[in-house]
Amino acid sequence: MIIVMQFGAAQEQIDFVADAIRSRGLEPLILPGQDRVAIGVPASLSNDQRLDLEAILGAMEGVSKITQTSHPYKLASREFHKSDTYVDVKGVRIGGGSFVVMGGPCSVESYEQFSLSAKIVKDSGATILRGGAFKPRTSPYSFQGLAEEGLKILKAVGDETGLVTISEVMSGDMVPLVCEYVDILQIGARSMQNFPLLIEAGKSGKPVFLKRGPSAAIDDFLLAAEYVLNQGNLQVILCERGIIPLDRTYTRNTLDLAAVPVLKEHTHLPVIVDPSHGTGVAKYVAPMAKAALVVGADGIMVEMHPDPKSALSDGSQALTPDQFNKMMQEMRALGAALGIQL
Amino acid sequence: MIIVMQFGAAQEQIDFVADAIRSRGLEPLILPGQDRVAIGVPASLSNDQRLDLEAILGAMEGVSKITQTSHPYKLASREFHKSDTYVDVKGVRIGGGSFVVMGGPCSVESYEQFSLSAKIVKDSGATILRGGAFKPRTSPYSFQGLAEEGLKILKAVGDETGLVTISEVMSGDMVPLVCEYVDILQIGARSMQNFPLLIEAGKSGKPVFLKRGPSAAIDDFLLAAEYVLNQGNLQVILCERGIIPLDRTYTRNTLDLAAVPVLKEHTHLPVIVDPSHGTGVAKYVAPMAKAALVVGADGIMVEMHPDPKSALSDGSQALTPDQFNKMMQEMRALGAALGIQL
Amino acid sequence: MIIVMQFGAAQEQIDFVADAIRSRGLEPLILPGQDRVAIGVPASLSNDQRLDLEAILGAMEGVSKITQTSHPYKLASREFHKSDTYVDVKGVRIGGGSFVVMGGPCSVESYEQFSLSAKIVKDSGATILRGGAFKPRTSPYSFQGLAEEGLKILKAVGDETGLVTISEVMSGDMVPLVCEYVDILQIGARSMQNFPLLIEAGKSGKPVFLKRGPSAAIDDFLLAAEYVLNQGNLQVILCERGIIPLDRTYTRNTLDLAAVPVLKEHTHLPVIVDPSHGTGVAKYVAPMAKAALVVGADGIMVEMHPDPKSALSDGSQALTPDQFNKMMQEMRALGAALGIQL
Amino acid sequence: MIIVMQFGAAQEQIDFVADAIRSRGLEPLILPGQDRVAIGVPASLSNDQRLDLEAILGAMEGVSKITQTSHPYKLASREFHKSDTYVDVKGVRIGGGSFVVMGGPCSVESYEQFSLSAKIVKDSGATILRGGAFKPRTSPYSFQGLAEEGLKILKAVGDETGLVTISEVMSGDMVPLVCEYVDILQIGARSMQNFPLLIEAGKSGKPVFLKRGPSAAIDDFLLAAEYVLNQGNLQVILCERGIIPLDRTYTRNTLDLAAVPVLKEHTHLPVIVDPSHGTGVAKYVAPMAKAALVVGADGIMVEMHPDPKSALSDGSQALTPDQFNKMMQEMRALGAALGIQL
Repeated sequence: MIIVMQFGAAQEQIDFVADAIRSRGLEPLILPGQDRVAIGVPASLSNDQRLDLEAILGAMEGVSKITQTSHPYKLASREFHKSDTYVDVKGVRIGGGSFVVMGGPCSVESYEQFSLSAKIVKDSGATILRGGAFKPRTSPYSFQGLAEEGLKILKAVGDETGLVTISEVMSGDMVPLVCEYVDILQIGARSMQNFPLLIEAGKSGKPVFLKRGPSAAIDDFLLAAEYVLNQGNLQVILCERGIIPLDRTYTRNTLDLAAVPVLKEHTHLPVIVDPSHGTGVAKYVAPMAKAALVVGADGIMVEMHPDPKSALSDGSQALTPDQFNKMMQEMRALGAALGIQL
Repeated sequence: MIIVMQFGAAQEQIDFVADAIRSRGLEPLILPGQDRVAIGVPASLSNDQRLDLEAILGAMEGVSKITQTSHPYKLASREFHKSDTYVDVKGVRIGGGSFVVMGGPCSVESYEQFSLSAKIVKDSGATILRGGAFKPRTSPYSFQGLAEEGLKILKAVGDETGLVTISEVMSGDMVPLVCEYVDILQIGARSMQNFPLLIEAGKSGKPVFLKRGPSAAIDDFLLAAEYVLNQGNLQVILCERGIIPLDRTYTRNTLDLAAVPVLKEHTHLPVIVDPSHGTGVAKYVAPMAKAALVVGADGIMVEMHPDPKSALSDGSQALTPDQFNKMMQEMRALGAALGIQL
Repeated sequence: MIIVMQFGAAQEQIDFVADAIRSRGLEPLILPGQDRVAIGVPASLSNDQRLDLEAILGAMEGVSKITQTSHPYKLASREFHKSDTYVDVKGVRIGGGSFVVMGGPCSVESYEQFSLSAKIVKDSGATILRGGAFKPRTSPYSFQGLAEEGLKILKAVGDETGLVTISEVMSGDMVPLVCEYVDILQIGARSMQNFPLLIEAGKSGKPVFLKRGPSAAIDDFLLAAEYVLNQGNLQVILCERGIIPLDRTYTRNTLDLAAVPVLKEHTHLPVIVDPSHGTGVAKYVAPMAKAALVVGADGIMVEMHPDPKSALSDGSQALTPDQFNKMMQEMRALGAALGIQL
Repeated sequence: MIIVMQFGAAQEQIDFVADAIRSRGLEPLILPGQDRVAIGVPASLSNDQRLDLEAILGAMEGVSKITQTSHPYKLASREFHKSDTYVDVKGVRIGGGSFVVMGGPCSVESYEQFSLSAKIVKDSGATILRGGAFKPRTSPYSFQGLAEEGLKILKAVGDETGLVTISEVMSGDMVPLVCEYVDILQIGARSMQNFPLLIEAGKSGKPVFLKRGPSAAIDDFLLAAEYVLNQGNLQVILCERGIIPLDRTYTRNTLDLAAVPVLKEHTHLPVIVDPSHGTGVAKYVAPMAKAALVVGADGIMVEMHPDPKSALSDGSQALTPDQFNKMMQEMRALGAALGIQL
């Protein structure tokens, strides 16, 4: 940590900061400049100490700014965990060199709709089946999902097809229920900083699929993952799903594809891209899915509905079965050219 | 609802849309233009019907865009509830012409710290006491609050001083516990779209203080309020607390003060401004608090700590007792000039 | 154009709007709803009429919002020009199925630096040589480019190598000078709405390479192109180069790759991606360049410097010659797999 | 300047950075931490040296990040110019304790429209008259202003009324022409980084009114001012006019009012607020104008049109004469309460 003093900070202000550092058993390094003074703190601090110290020094008079020399996350950081983490679910490996496709409708609407969806997903070669039972919806008047009834359908269809299942959980107290039915817990973008939920998901021991919040900086995203990891649950999968857009005219979000190489550099956790939410428009899903493969993602999550026109939620971004199959074929051809198996 | 067809949309596409509307018992109004066709749907739809229809039509071929002619929120809308709503808590009126000040530290840290804070708040003339017991923190390594122990201190100090109390609740299952101790439930910015929490807060019947999410559009904010209202709980107080900033160099958020007159026009609910989170910097709090008064807010929430340098959270934005008192005096003088009583 | 009246708008307000429309020789179509009235205007308006009418109606009492049923751009629109436009410069085709690579240093620094750069660019198989002579720099104290001296070097090296050249022009009065030396005029992101410059670039008849402004919506971008097209210059090339980022910690901008398929759908003009400015970090350039190829861009512009460590501007985003060559090989392999020739 | 090395940076990388610093005649201060090394550079650098060095070091291997310890602007900085700068134009003082009102229509449309506007402005007590002759418009099909004809009207009306005049100039080569007619040169938001224009405006010696770009960080804004100041022209007036909005549904921009105290702290230049562009909606102008007064701005610029319904540009944000007069009365009352004379 480096504390930069204001131009013309008084000697007493400098001493006050230095003393505050010393009072915590640390030895400040004073770095005099011509214009202003900087004060270094050796980075042997725990995260708790570091954040605590930053808050206190930041409020002191004469302090201009504080620069962290290390990342605020530790367990998620590649600095301390060099090799890629992969998550193994019923034989499907997420991360570590493979490329997975998670497909299925936004919501589980009925056994018929969902088992038909699963058949299409499986036949296309995808291995993970998505479907929402608890739906976070902006309006209380929108379809909210089938709740436990939806989870039962999800599990039944998962068992029948052998597909790995994933579904969203919206609150910490629902984690045990959802864990009974699904293979991977999804934490949605709006819940990225639902800390009680992150903690319960961490305690559950289930693989956790964590979506980036629409206005979350990379560090905030990795700190959210850190909440799960910190409970001893190392099976965390990250998902870039679009950030708030500059321009809502043509897309619903801005898919931040460069976040993939950024994340792959700074964390060892697998990174999935969701081009369905990332664009919000079915016709842009396939090109962005292919781009995700090219930039080094570990997989994609794509919404597909047997009949998007009748979908109870997010119909405008769901692919038709034909579009989904065509995308899968193109992805496989592209993967073959890149030496990546789908 | 008006559906605008693409330029050169085929007659079958137009008919397909019109039939979909008719199949729901509605009569479409075809509006031919020289370039393209628009199709009107009489706005006698319930919200459910409207949103359902929008999703389905939006996915149809030949559809260019869909414009809603009415707002997606109803209970929060001033269109159907002309007069200002006010919330009365132990004789303190929020909204409806008064101007309230909510003050106190970010976190309840100890009985001593909190009762000293309460004394300063009360002596300054403010009527509502804030203090966090459950703290949503970006990092799992930051101070997370005293939990129920903090609530007990809050209640004890509230009882001793007669101040109305407000504290944050982070998940739906904690609503009953927090309700035992506090007068107003706060839902934080990160939880604005924690729908299970909104529903439980609605069911509790307690006044709910709802902060705008950092990337929430006005309509999303009012739809979050709608979740609470829809449970029959009409005691909802809105809070503008800053949106994601263009530039993090000098402030932590961008306080969107124009949201106050926008909200006052479109909703009957009281609107509070939080200049502490809105700027993140103590020295900018007082000017923005005064601006909130001038633009028509119903009150402010301001962080004050007996000793910001030792605060366990958010010390850099907390006012000292002297700064808080000075701000209160200036606010009162300004209110007097404007005929608003503080 | 459709005018939506406010809920409960008075009949006189509706009549007033209708009369304003009739006073321009147009027949309004009244679309009564249960909640509110909408008024359609047949879309046979010129752009001038449409914008004029929108401004006037928008200020009328009782008007809630105005929806345009057609795009504000015409010449740039694919609706009226179905086939892809391509720009042919000295035998190099930009757009229309080919994929071009524009490479070179941020700034022309010396004959030696630039001719060495050109050799590397040419040997790698790229066909267009970039180099700035007039540099828009955020600070007046940064290197501002070699001005005409730089243009002379650019032209000499272009002639020697046979590479097509591109360089930025920053103001309308400099267009004739820059046209003497370069093959393609570049208009930078900060100049996207420098309308006098756009008009002069249009008049010049030279191919114009127009970069998207960092906060420009797609429609604003196409309207900027419309300024050039409207001068009778149809040789316009668009460039996505990153929009303002949510998070500046790891990248300098957010590369909006989905803008490529959005633009390809709505305009017939060629679309180039600049991953160097789009990320601002050399190590992320190659993956994003490959993603640009996959999502359907017509080419890329990439910064390469013989010795980035000694670059006078933007050294942190420039590729080394080795990195550039490696990227080109990977791009060619990827293009081969996709049936796209580089 | 402080260079933070990556975790585990090799000793050769550290030495390489240190040598690069020494090669410029500076002595690096090595600050070893447990995790990583930081290297300080004494801040006796000129801006040129500093920026040059930053670019070069930033590209070196093993460097994690670079923190500037001083601001990139000098002439605009309050650190080196403690007292408020004020600009005196024909006896009207801008900055330094007074509060000015600049009023008038978006565009000069005719002598009649403009002289009527001027009369209203003058009668209300405002002292500066605005009106655009060269209009930067997003679409080439929108009204572009009366050009020199508009300037002639502006000057005639200015002379007749004794009001100080201000009008926009869009390119460097037009600066001499505009200087013939107007008292204050306005540089619009879209031109904030039109560097050739900034330089010509600087050379002109006229007072320069510089609007913040819609996506400009505070430092970028002050560096744009620095371009003008660096030409020896110290008469620079800053204007906050709204930044790109999160939500375009209800306002056109987000007025960043906290930028006023931020700017007043870091620069000595006067700061004006434009609530007309800042909100884009006439009914929100007066409250935000009052807020500007309260937060410490040196004045406001407000659009007023004798008949907004017939305005050729931006009619939806212009106040009617009655609204303008009412705002002026309220502002004067508020100013009286605050001891600020309008």
